[in-house]
Amino acid sequence: MTDENVISFRIPPWVAGFLPRYVASTNIDDRMSFVIEATRRNVIEKTGGPFAAAIFERDGGKLVSLGVNLVATENLCILHAEIVAIAVAQRALGTFDLGQEGLPPHELVTSSEPCAMCFGAVPWSGVRRLVAGARDADVRKIGFDEGAKTADWRAELEKRGIETIVDVRRDMAVGVLNGYAAQGGAIYGARGTGPSG
Amino acid sequence: MTDENVISFRIPPWVAGFLPRYVASTNIDDRMSFVIEATRRNVIEKTGGPFAAAIFERDGGKLVSLGVNLVATENLCILHAEIVAIAVAQRALGTFDLGQEGLPPHELVTSSEPCAMCFGAVPWSGVRRLVAGARDADVRKIGFDEGAKTADWRAELEKRGIETIVDVRRDMAVGVLNGYAAQGGAIYGARGTGPSG
Repeated sequence: MTDENVISFRIPPWVAGFLPRYVASTNIDDRMSFVIEATRRNVIEKTGGPFAAAIFERDGGKLVSLGVNLVATENLCILHAEIVAIAVAQRALGTFDLGQEGLPPHELVTSSEPCAMCFGAVPWSGVRRLVAGARDADVRKIGFDEGAKTADWRAELEKRGIETIVDVRRDMAVGVLNGYAAQGGAIYGARGTGPSG
Repeated sequence: MTDENVISFRIPPWVAGFLPRYVASTNIDDRMSFVIEATRRNVIEKTGGPFAAAIFERDGGKLVSLGVNLVATENLCILHAEIVAIAVAQRALGTFDLGQEGLPPHELVTSSEPCAMCFGAVPWSGVRRLVAGARDADVRKIGFDEGAKTADWRAELEKRGIETIVDVRRDMAVGVLNGYAAQGGAIYGARGTGPSG
């Protein structure tokens, strides 16, 4: 029986089997490599676009959640990888604020710099650090739109106490984006200029 | 049986009974009054913050979805009213793009100007018009944070073919915000400066 008052989305079945590939690491390159491998897998499994993101405990590196882009699979434009990762983490920890007192600091590691929507969501999530792989320009180069993000987005996050680190394993992240484009992967989204994430 | 691979949220039970209060109207004041009444009801029912939003068919005024703020109720920071309205509409129409060919133009009517996250989501949703009641400044005045939204946010939407109309029944919208604050309503969110929406 479906309940029309419930909106739900499903994490693809392959994700559960993929999680053990990551072993808690204090090295952000290791965390990013795991996230980028998830982008590749999301494309291979045809469960979404070439974007993934994960929430980790910032200091020890424990994995809290992995999100992949599910926009086309789930017919919801909001399901960028970052949004999925934030939602899964908040449900796992039972709070809408990953920065709440009593919790260890969390970070969001994303395969590409966040689009305007995901950038706006980062402060609400409660994470204390954002780590990104590919740049906005890399994403735009294959045809996705990052939206109207303020040019000084890193400064805006820093002002809110959120550290930012970019260009982490950028070449590897760009490799997946370019491979996706070369295979003719769908550049989905509104008005022909699809959202990324 | 709960499935940890499924993330879901529930539209509050009162919403279904509330929808018939709206009769399709070509007047945006009528649409906004309905949305603002939903903010009041969301507070009375204790199902979330003083924010609501709805998707309508722009020209005929048919109601497609009503969303209310569910951040604290559902423990998900992304569940601002606009995001909920977009998700419900996209599920109802079976598409991640409300602007896709073959559909009538849609609009998002929101009780307060969107925060940075919801602003970023608007172009991805496919709506062709955004109608807002209370201003950012009104929301900030009672302690909520609108995030790092680009100052020329209306121009950015217009550039993407999305018309914007603001200050629609602003006094009525502000009345609910101020009433909420006067009753000591929770200003929830990260770092003590809670997100709006």
